[in-house]
Amino acid sequence: MTDHKQVYFFGDGAADGDGGMRPILGGKGATLAEMSRIGLPVPAGFTIATEVSVSFGPERTALPEGLRAEIDTALARVEQLMDARFGDADRPLLLSVRSGAQVSMPGMMDTVLNVGLNPDTVKGLAAWSGDERFALDSWRRLIQMFGDVVLGVDHFVFEDELHQAKLRAGVRDDNALSADQLRALVDRFHAIIERETGAPFPNDPQEQLHASIRAVFASWHNDRARSYRELNDIPHDWGTAVNVQAMVFGNLGDDSATGVAFTRDPSTGENAFYGEFLPNAQGEDVVAGIRTPQPLRRAPESGLVSLEEMMPSAFAELDDMRRRLEAHFREMQDIEFTIQRGRVWMLQTRTGKRTAAAGLRIACEMVEEGLLSQKEAVLAIDSRRFDALLHPQLDPDAEKDVLARGLPASPGAATGRIAFTAEDAERRAAAGEDILLVRVETTPEDIRGMNAARGILTARGGMTSHAAVVARQMGRPCVAGCSALDLDVAGQSLRVAGRTFGPDDALTLDGGTGEVIAGSVPRVPPRLGDSWGTLMGWVDGHRRIGVRANADNGEDAALARRLGAEGIGLCRTEHMFFAGDRINAMREMIMSPSPEARRKALDTLRPFQQEDFEAIFRAMDGLPVTIRLLDPPLHEFLPTRDADLEDLAGRLGLGVREVRAIAGRLAEANPMLGHRGCRLGVTWPEIIEMQTRAILDAAIAVESEGARIQPEIMVPLVALESELEWCRKRIEAILDEYRSRLRARVLIGTMIELPRACLVADRIARHADFFSFGTNDLTQTTLGISRDDAATFLPAYIDQGLLQHDPFVVLDEEGVGALIRMAVEKGRTVRPDLKVGICGEHGGEPRSVAFVENGLVDYVSCSPYRVPVARLAAAQAALRATAPDSPA
Amino acid sequence: MTDHKQVYFFGDGAADGDGGMRPILGGKGATLAEMSRIGLPVPAGFTIATEVSVSFGPERTALPEGLRAEIDTALARVEQLMDARFGDADRPLLLSVRSGAQVSMPGMMDTVLNVGLNPDTVKGLAAWSGDERFALDSWRRLIQMFGDVVLGVDHFVFEDELHQAKLRAGVRDDNALSADQLRALVDRFHAIIERETGAPFPNDPQEQLHASIRAVFASWHNDRARSYRELNDIPHDWGTAVNVQAMVFGNLGDDSATGVAFTRDPSTGENAFYGEFLPNAQGEDVVAGIRTPQPLRRAPESGLVSLEEMMPSAFAELDDMRRRLEAHFREMQDIEFTIQRGRVWMLQTRTGKRTAAAGLRIACEMVEEGLLSQKEAVLAIDSRRFDALLHPQLDPDAEKDVLARGLPASPGAATGRIAFTAEDAERRAAAGEDILLVRVETTPEDIRGMNAARGILTARGGMTSHAAVVARQMGRPCVAGCSALDLDVAGQSLRVAGRTFGPDDALTLDGGTGEVIAGSVPRVPPRLGDSWGTLMGWVDGHRRIGVRANADNGEDAALARRLGAEGIGLCRTEHMFFAGDRINAMREMIMSPSPEARRKALDTLRPFQQEDFEAIFRAMDGLPVTIRLLDPPLHEFLPTRDADLEDLAGRLGLGVREVRAIAGRLAEANPMLGHRGCRLGVTWPEIIEMQTRAILDAAIAVESEGARIQPEIMVPLVALESELEWCRKRIEAILDEYRSRLRARVLIGTMIELPRACLVADRIARHADFFSFGTNDLTQTTLGISRDDAATFLPAYIDQGLLQHDPFVVLDEEGVGALIRMAVEKGRTVRPDLKVGICGEHGGEPRSVAFVENGLVDYVSCSPYRVPVARLAAAQAALRATAPDSPA
Repeated sequence: MTDHKQVYFFGDGAADGDGGMRPILGGKGATLAEMSRIGLPVPAGFTIATEVSVSFGPERTALPEGLRAEIDTALARVEQLMDARFGDADRPLLLSVRSGAQVSMPGMMDTVLNVGLNPDTVKGLAAWSGDERFALDSWRRLIQMFGDVVLGVDHFVFEDELHQAKLRAGVRDDNALSADQLRALVDRFHAIIERETGAPFPNDPQEQLHASIRAVFASWHNDRARSYRELNDIPHDWGTAVNVQAMVFGNLGDDSATGVAFTRDPSTGENAFYGEFLPNAQGEDVVAGIRTPQPLRRAPESGLVSLEEMMPSAFAELDDMRRRLEAHFREMQDIEFTIQRGRVWMLQTRTGKRTAAAGLRIACEMVEEGLLSQKEAVLAIDSRRFDALLHPQLDPDAEKDVLARGLPASPGAATGRIAFTAEDAERRAAAGEDILLVRVETTPEDIRGMNAARGILTARGGMTSHAAVVARQMGRPCVAGCSALDLDVAGQSLRVAGRTFGPDDALTLDGGTGEVIAGSVPRVPPRLGDSWGTLMGWVDGHRRIGVRANADNGEDAALARRLGAEGIGLCRTEHMFFAGDRINAMREMIMSPSPEARRKALDTLRPFQQEDFEAIFRAMDGLPVTIRLLDPPLHEFLPTRDADLEDLAGRLGLGVREVRAIAGRLAEANPMLGHRGCRLGVTWPEIIEMQTRAILDAAIAVESEGARIQPEIMVPLVALESELEWCRKRIEAILDEYRSRLRARVLIGTMIELPRACLVADRIARHADFFSFGTNDLTQTTLGISRDDAATFLPAYIDQGLLQHDPFVVLDEEGVGALIRMAVEKGRTVRPDLKVGICGEHGGEPRSVAFVENGLVDYVSCSPYRVPVARLAAAQAALRATAPDSPA
Repeated sequence: MTDHKQVYFFGDGAADGDGGMRPILGGKGATLAEMSRIGLPVPAGFTIATEVSVSFGPERTALPEGLRAEIDTALARVEQLMDARFGDADRPLLLSVRSGAQVSMPGMMDTVLNVGLNPDTVKGLAAWSGDERFALDSWRRLIQMFGDVVLGVDHFVFEDELHQAKLRAGVRDDNALSADQLRALVDRFHAIIERETGAPFPNDPQEQLHASIRAVFASWHNDRARSYRELNDIPHDWGTAVNVQAMVFGNLGDDSATGVAFTRDPSTGENAFYGEFLPNAQGEDVVAGIRTPQPLRRAPESGLVSLEEMMPSAFAELDDMRRRLEAHFREMQDIEFTIQRGRVWMLQTRTGKRTAAAGLRIACEMVEEGLLSQKEAVLAIDSRRFDALLHPQLDPDAEKDVLARGLPASPGAATGRIAFTAEDAERRAAAGEDILLVRVETTPEDIRGMNAARGILTARGGMTSHAAVVARQMGRPCVAGCSALDLDVAGQSLRVAGRTFGPDDALTLDGGTGEVIAGSVPRVPPRLGDSWGTLMGWVDGHRRIGVRANADNGEDAALARRLGAEGIGLCRTEHMFFAGDRINAMREMIMSPSPEARRKALDTLRPFQQEDFEAIFRAMDGLPVTIRLLDPPLHEFLPTRDADLEDLAGRLGLGVREVRAIAGRLAEANPMLGHRGCRLGVTWPEIIEMQTRAILDAAIAVESEGARIQPEIMVPLVALESELEWCRKRIEAILDEYRSRLRARVLIGTMIELPRACLVADRIARHADFFSFGTNDLTQTTLGISRDDAATFLPAYIDQGLLQHDPFVVLDEEGVGALIRMAVEKGRTVRPDLKVGICGEHGGEPRSVAFVENGLVDYVSCSPYRVPVARLAAAQAALRATAPDSPA
């Protein structure tokens, strides 16, 4: 027993809680309270706080006495408001028992509806509704859900029984079963329960309620909920609340309905009411995606009757609520409603999931509509899914072998080979294959496979089906409800348009048009709408740190600049050596027996390097360009195939055996910790010399075209002060030769990517004009984890909760972050004007950007397509730092 | 010009400087001043300060005016005292010009003797000495040395000319040339100088003196001096002093002589005058090792006449000086002396190099003699060479194929294949071969080859020859002057005892007996003398931290305990898995498809582990034993040879291809940073379980024998708090099962070997009873250097001065040391009683021990044979910390 409140009542324009109490009431409970407070028609009910679920654990122990007393009190208020009594044979109150965590986890946890029905109350329900069939169907649903969720009887057993009953009756729809047929079905369901559990179905409404509450609490701990939380970074110790609420019915006839809606279009962001309903149905029927729903608004091309046409006054009432909800929550909402005999009831509202593009448009338009400030709009964008906006689209001019068309459920283009099960998708994707997951419909069990796939295609389900909702949230292109597909999962084949496709065949999906295309289709960069320019203008206005790009050639540099990069933070010179003939000169250099021979081979490479640097300098006119000297172990440049080895031996005038022996000597036990980075420069200084000359010659050439160049030469993998001092001396000696011909001031700095460099950063800073943190390698050495080898244990670490995130994705603040902080502080004691950046994957990851934004770095640098994400993340971090309480 | 003193006079019982001024006067200069001050007969002279050499650099610029004036003043005092004048034709003063750095660098720098001779003064010298032949020979020597050292004429040219002259004269000894023959030789030497340099030999004594001083200063910068300094950790910026001193002559007839001596026996430490002399010779003749020297003391078995017999009064005078020197310097001395017509002159004294065993005996006996305190004796031992004492000796009972016998120049036994040049020795040793360097005699150019060799064998030279002195200092066994050897370096062959040996043949040297043996000979541990026990008693009395050993089996543990280990600091459990059948069970475990199959294979291994643990616990009754859980990547246990793979496949009932595929999947890009350490335990917890059970079962078994067990279970490679928490929970769960049957308290701790662990040590300490720093891996990750791959660049780093020491030998205090300090401080904030140790190579390295001794750790742990070194180093560090000014 606890001494504080655990049960929170809501209903009839009042509530014990409010929308700010999500940690206690869960998202759904807080929103029901909030909706009730602002006068929306919410069926009365109460929320049991999240702490109860945590204290319960996965075991379904009895509810504590104190909690039961609180429930009784709240229930009494619900009975009074709804004018019905729980367990009453005349006017029975029925209850729904639903989960509701702090953030939405759609379909992950369990629900029990129609709690309170038994042989007595079912008669009362029949009398009140005037519809015995309805009462019996409700009873059938209770037994089925309770049996599955509370008693653990496999739901297929009930579905099979239902299917048999319909076959016997010769009907297709559940609704078409007669009262007698339903009564027989209920009897059979009762028999199933007794057979499977060894006990009769509990007829005591209190027992039904308490068992349902316990089961829903326990469902927080089930496997699919756990894996969803891991995928979505939701802590396991938050727990779920349980919402117990008076049932209202959308299946009381043709003046009843149930539906879901978004207050704006979740795919495009258009400010138009967008949703689906099923007449004469319960809510679960819509979410399950089994019956094809009808549109809310008039949509003649669909061939379906809209709610607007069918029940115009209910539609008008709903449309008014849509406006009130957005004005109150200042966010696009995803609502569930039920119309019971013409009266609209709001069951749920929550922030609506949307595509990145829709998010952008909604934020911008809400600023225009006066709902949000610019700052709030910037903060409202989900930076983690922002790069989806920049995913390439199919080339509109390309020829396409279109097989079929489904619903454009989640935009973007995806090509991959077919996987017929989520397990297969996960396995093959892990092996490096591009996969499309093709299913009749998806279920929560498919989540890992959906995440592993490039795109998702389903044969059934609408725009709000599981596949559609989850794909949009994950940023995966999805075509849903493509009924032309004929799937044979066991036979691993897909028939469509008279053709058959198997696991080795590739398809392409266009999630923006719903097209399903054979083979692959060329892509083009996306067209960004007006909202993009507007929002990025606000973003850059709030940003405090610079954003640069990692790019190794002129083309990527130009792309990066178009995406807003303010310079190049990392140009990896080694990538230039792989193209065409260059690799041959590189290999000759590596195999050279003497510094002289090496210098000769390097002379061959120099013009190539210069050419590449010129292209980058040109693209970055007026902006800084950081060029890293040769970094990887030389072994990486050598051929492995026999034919290539022979070719190289021939060119060098050596025997194959000799070339193989040299290659063998260059092989390393741990190349990551081997002869690379500045260590190459110390042993082979002619490399530093050649690269410096190529940079400076390129700078002079591009300056002569009138451009303003800002070259920054970066020495990699420094651990010792003496290394940077040594390299700097050699670079400066060459710089002295060029000084009179060069306008630019050339900076010389270092990549900080080893723990020791952080520990002695004050000494290293004596010789550095800038630091750039190479967070990939710094993570590898700080944690002692090879990125290439981590796949054998990191997933287990995350599964078992030893790590929250992959440290190669999200910066390890406690370890790597502490070293970065130490290095910046030490470096600035010696050189207060030290320029500091980070390059590497973390430079484009929002949480990592937020960590370094607050005074640690002057800029971040990331791959071109992540530049907009980094700009947004930096602006959001700046806004949060200055206005910590602004609504997000 | 400088405004402070640069020239320091000494002679006749007085001196400007003293023995404490080594940084300014160099070792030799300071000692000459000190000897003169205490009244020993030192030829008058003066020392030019070290700073002059540093300011000069390698270029031979003119001496500054101010310095020349100081030289003139000092020279005038020398002339007065020696009753002769520099450049005077009647009674000419001759001078020696010698280097003298702060620490002795024997043979590394240059010397010029007989400075001041020319056609006029040579006549005066002939008249004064009454020996024209002597005067002409002295002149010949001046031209030869000056020609070589100052003018850069190859010394072989002069030697060849001398050789021709002796051939023409039909004599073998230099001394046998007549005056006329010497005059003709001098003429030819003059012609050589004129031919090679294009200018006549300078006859102006002042010009000779100044040029000699400049040349000796410059020799500080020559290559062999640089490489000697690097090998011996002598800073390049110390510089050398130059000592200018009146010449005295050991070659004025049979009442003259020159010699070198040690005040005690440098091989055994026996308190007996020990040295060699050459009658009628100059000092360089002794050091060069060309003529066979005679003993100081009577030694009938040698067949040579001793000084004691030849010049009893000079011997008595020298023996008295020996006592005065030791009483004054309180150290065994290495002296050079000359007897000029019966009068003894001391030319030099310095701390004598000695074997580790001699050092031990001398220190102990000096305490008995009242010369040293116990503390001083402990501090007097050179800890860096201390482990040489423990080198195995040849088994006295083994059969030996003795080929010849030379001088027992440096003790210890060495076996290796023959290298005929130092370059060959260095190259082959670097490739992993055990090498003996076999030379006619060694020169300073051979130093790197000597260091790379296991032992050194020479055909010529005595106990004070270059080979003997350097080998003793390096701790390399050496047999010198083995005249039975017939060496053909060009033909790469050695003939001895009628047999021929080449580069592929192995020899064994016994440096304690002088035996040269064919092939290899079994070894046994050394017998340690009484001094050992005495000294180690004092050592342990002053020590503040514990010393443990790294040992993986009962035998090593017992050895370690005999050598003074106070527990096991690191028992690597994986080593146990390689022996016999165990490797098969281990391989089956690794290949197991399921946890169940794995557990079964582990069950096979468990009794083996238990047995090993029992042996270790028994050996360490009453002492703590730290057992590290399985650490290396599993791939290391798999076979690589086809036959072994087939065998394994057969045993597992799998195809070879399948086994190869599994092995391939286990291979890693960077195994050092891969799936190893506690990561194995997290993914395969049944390994932790099996090992914990084996440890606890062993503990119970050995407790039942009455022993007192202190097991410490160590979790390796922890980077995250959660890892240790996770592993500890599993270990404790098993511990709970055993608790009632076990008397011992079992500690659970972790190996700190990743930078991240140091950064979050406070959090890790919550779950750790102890920390043990794995400094090998911590060095690898902190510096980002793979120990296995460092050979390609670390030598270049040391050559070029980027690193002072190999960080895998001497702890990197600035980087790794800073992390250790941080981790200990953080750890102790959470757990003030945290037990802290270091294991790994640094635990037995004296400088590293000194770093951690001062409050950082409770103990160090190292390989058994290094335990005594660690004890000594710990005691010395403690003594230096408490008495920083005590004499060393």
